[in-house]
Amino acid sequence: MHFETLKWDVDENGILTLTLYRPEQLNAFSVTMAHELEQAFRTVRADDSVRAVIVTGEGRAFCAGMDLSADGNVFGLDEALNPTAENLRDRLTEAPIQDGVRDAGGKVTLAIFDCDKPVIAAINGAAVGIGATMTLAMDIRLASTQARIGFVFGRLGIVPEAASSFFLPRIVGIQNALELVYAADILQAERAHEVGLVRSVHEPDDLLPEAHRLALSFVQGRSSAALAMARRLLYAGVGSSHPLEAHRRDSLAMWHASVGDGKEGVAAFLEKRDPVFTGTVRDVPELG
Amino acid sequence: MHFETLKWDVDENGILTLTLYRPEQLNAFSVTMAHELEQAFRTVRADDSVRAVIVTGEGRAFCAGMDLSADGNVFGLDEALNPTAENLRDRLTEAPIQDGVRDAGGKVTLAIFDCDKPVIAAINGAAVGIGATMTLAMDIRLASTQARIGFVFGRLGIVPEAASSFFLPRIVGIQNALELVYAADILQAERAHEVGLVRSVHEPDDLLPEAHRLALSFVQGRSSAALAMARRLLYAGVGSSHPLEAHRRDSLAMWHASVGDGKEGVAAFLEKRDPVFTGTVRDVPELG
Amino acid sequence: MHFETLKWDVDENGILTLTLYRPEQLNAFSVTMAHELEQAFRTVRADDSVRAVIVTGEGRAFCAGMDLSADGNVFGLDEALNPTAENLRDRLTEAPIQDGVRDAGGKVTLAIFDCDKPVIAAINGAAVGIGATMTLAMDIRLASTQARIGFVFGRLGIVPEAASSFFLPRIVGIQNALELVYAADILQAERAHEVGLVRSVHEPDDLLPEAHRLALSFVQGRSSAALAMARRLLYAGVGSSHPLEAHRRDSLAMWHASVGDGKEGVAAFLEKRDPVFTGTVRDVPELG
Repeated sequence: MHFETLKWDVDENGILTLTLYRPEQLNAFSVTMAHELEQAFRTVRADDSVRAVIVTGEGRAFCAGMDLSADGNVFGLDEALNPTAENLRDRLTEAPIQDGVRDAGGKVTLAIFDCDKPVIAAINGAAVGIGATMTLAMDIRLASTQARIGFVFGRLGIVPEAASSFFLPRIVGIQNALELVYAADILQAERAHEVGLVRSVHEPDDLLPEAHRLALSFVQGRSSAALAMARRLLYAGVGSSHPLEAHRRDSLAMWHASVGDGKEGVAAFLEKRDPVFTGTVRDVPELG
Repeated sequence: MHFETLKWDVDENGILTLTLYRPEQLNAFSVTMAHELEQAFRTVRADDSVRAVIVTGEGRAFCAGMDLSADGNVFGLDEALNPTAENLRDRLTEAPIQDGVRDAGGKVTLAIFDCDKPVIAAINGAAVGIGATMTLAMDIRLASTQARIGFVFGRLGIVPEAASSFFLPRIVGIQNALELVYAADILQAERAHEVGLVRSVHEPDDLLPEAHRLALSFVQGRSSAALAMARRLLYAGVGSSHPLEAHRRDSLAMWHASVGDGKEGVAAFLEKRDPVFTGTVRDVPELG
Repeated sequence: MHFETLKWDVDENGILTLTLYRPEQLNAFSVTMAHELEQAFRTVRADDSVRAVIVTGEGRAFCAGMDLSADGNVFGLDEALNPTAENLRDRLTEAPIQDGVRDAGGKVTLAIFDCDKPVIAAINGAAVGIGATMTLAMDIRLASTQARIGFVFGRLGIVPEAASSFFLPRIVGIQNALELVYAADILQAERAHEVGLVRSVHEPDDLLPEAHRLALSFVQGRSSAALAMARRLLYAGVGSSHPLEAHRRDSLAMWHASVGDGKEGVAAFLEKRDPVFTGTVRDVPELG
C-alpha cells in the first residue's frame, strides 16, 4: 500500500503499523489524510495478512488536529455541496448518508469501527482535536509520557466529532467525558491514565515495543474469525438495551465458531497441541 | 429571580449559584422546592445571561432528602389525582406523561438534563435520597470533606427515583451502582470519590471556589451554542446503540457550528486573536 | 432443593449459598450444571424465603470452564437439533428463541438476570471461560486472593458468551473489556480489582464471611419488593437511550411502593420504629 500521508508497514506477524506521516505539519489531519485513513482501514478489513493494527505518528506529534491551513474543509465537511439548514437534516437521515454533509472524522472512525481487527493507538505526542477523537474508535490507547491529549473543540466554537460521543463516555464514564469536553484542556499522559482514557503510560522508547507486544499477544495462536466476532459482540453489547439481544448474537457467533475455528481449537486443546486456525473475517456472519 | 426555597445568584461571568435554601430543614426537598427547581432550570435554559450553574446547599446540609413532614407527597407523587394500579400504566405511557402520577424528582432531573448549560453539584454536606439522586443529572459532582451521600431508598421500602437509574450506572459502572443502591448506606466523601461518584473532594472552604474555578474554565472564551451541542451530543451518545447514530448528530452539529460560532472561532485562531462568540442555546438545532 | 452439581443452603436470614459442586472436575460446567443453575435461579425468583444469593465453588476452583470431556456439547449448543447456517438466524430471531441453537451459558445468565434478588459471586479460585462469564450477570463480584479469572475463549477459537458482551463493558468500560477478551489471559485477583472487574479482594478464609456480611446488609430490614424493583430499574436504566424512559419506570415503581412497603417504611420512619415489610417479588409490576 502506498499513501501520501500515511506509512503502512506490516511485520512478519501480521501486525500493521500505520503511521500518520506529515511530520512537518505535526501530522495534521488533511482532506487527503482523511481519505487515506478511511481507505487504509477498509483495506485492513479486506486483507487477511493484516491481523492487528497499531496507529502512531511520525516525529514528535501523534496528530495535531485538523489542518486549518487547508482550503474549504476546516470543519471536516465538504462545503462544495453547499448544504443549507433546510436540507441538511434530510441529507443526514437518508440511508446511506449523503457525502458532502458528513463529518470527515466520522467517516474515518466508522471505518476503524468496521475493520474487524484489534486496533491500538500508540499516542507518541500531541493528539489534539480529531487527533484525540480518532483514537477513541481504536480499541486500546497507549500513551508515551510525551503524549498531550486535548478535546479542544470548545475553544474554536465547534463540537467534538468523529462519533466521539458514542465512544468517550463508554471509555471514561459520563462524568469524565463531560469534563474533558467542557474544559477543552490539553491533558498530560498521567492525567489521561487517571481518568481511564489511556490504558497505560510508557517511556517514549518503550511505547511502540509495548504496543507490539500487546498486539502480538492478541493475535498469536488466535483465530482471526473469533477475534472479529468477539470485537463485534462487545461493541454491539455495549449499545444493547437488554442481555437477551447479546444472547441472540452470542448463540449465532458460537454456532459459527463451532463449525469453524472453534472445532479445531477444542480438538487441539484436547489433543494437547497448538491449534491451526484458518478462519478469516470473511467467514464471520452478520451478528446484528 | 425570586424563590421561596432557593437562592439565585448570577455573577459577572454568567455563573449561576443556585442554593437550596431551607437551612432549618436541612434543605429537605418539598413540593415547593420541586416546582421551583424545575422552574429554575427551565429559566436557566431560556436566560442567555446564565452560562453555567453551580448547585449547593445553604448551611450544613446539601439536601437531606424528601421532606417527610409534608402532607400527602412523601413519595413525590401527587396523590390528589388518585391513580390506581389499573390506570397508572396508561397514564405513564401517554405522551406527554400526565402529571399527578409522575415522580417529582424526575421532573426536576429532566429539567436539569434539558437545561443546555454545564451544571456542577457542589455537595457541601448531607445529600440523601432525592438529595443524592438529583445530583446525578448534574454533569459533575464536587464534594466537601463534610459531604455524606446516601441512596437510602431501600431503608424506607421505596426505590431510587429521579431517573437515577439512567445516570448512576453511567457514572460509576453497574457493579458500583448496584452496591450503592442495595447497601443504602451513607457514603463518606472519600468513598464517593473512590467509586467515581464525585470528581474530587475539597476542604469545606475550598468547595465553592473550586466549583467556580471549574465553571469559569468551562465558559470563559467559549460559545454557548457549542457547549450546548457538545452536552447534547454526549448524553445522546451514551444512550446510542451504534456510532453511526453519533455520526449523524455530529455532522449536523458541526455543520451548524460551521455557519455560526465555529466560523468565528477558526477565523480568530488563524488571526491569533480572541474569538467573539455570539451563539446561544436558541441557535442549537435538534440533534436527535 | 436437591441438585447433582450444586449445593443449596439457605441460612436463617434467607441468604442462599449456591455452591458449584463438582470439585473433582474443578466444578467444570456440564450440561447438567447448566440445567440445574437455570432451574436454581428460577427457584430463587419463586421462593420468597430466599432473599439474596451467594455463588461460590466447592474446593479449590470456582468453575474451570466448559467441561470439554462432555459429549456433544463443548460449545454449549445442543447439536441434536442440527442447525445449519441457513436456518440458524431464523431460529435465533424467532420469539421465543428456539432451544437447541441457544448458548447454554446465556440461558443461565438470563435466569440470573431475571431472578429479582441480589446475587454476589464469591470467586474462590479458578474462574475460566463460562466460569468467568457467568459471574458477569451476578450483581457484585468478590474475589479471594486465590482467584484466577480468564476470558480465555480466544485461545480455543471461540467467543465470549453468556450475554457477557452486555455486562462486561458496563462493569469495566469498553477499553478494559476489549483487552480482557483479546488477551484471553488468566488475571490475578489484584489485576481483576484494578480494572474494576471485582469489587474487592479477600484472604481465602475471609471470602465467604465478607460475602455473607454484604448480602445481609442488602436484605436485613429491607423490602424484597423494593429491592427487586431497584434491581430492575438499574439494569433497565443502563440499557436506556434517554432518562425519560427511566422516569416512566421510576414513577410506576414509586407508585407501587407508595401503596405497599413504602407506606410502611415511611410510617415506621416517622414513628421511629423498625419497619415490617411484607412485599415480595410477586408484588412487583412489569416496569418496562
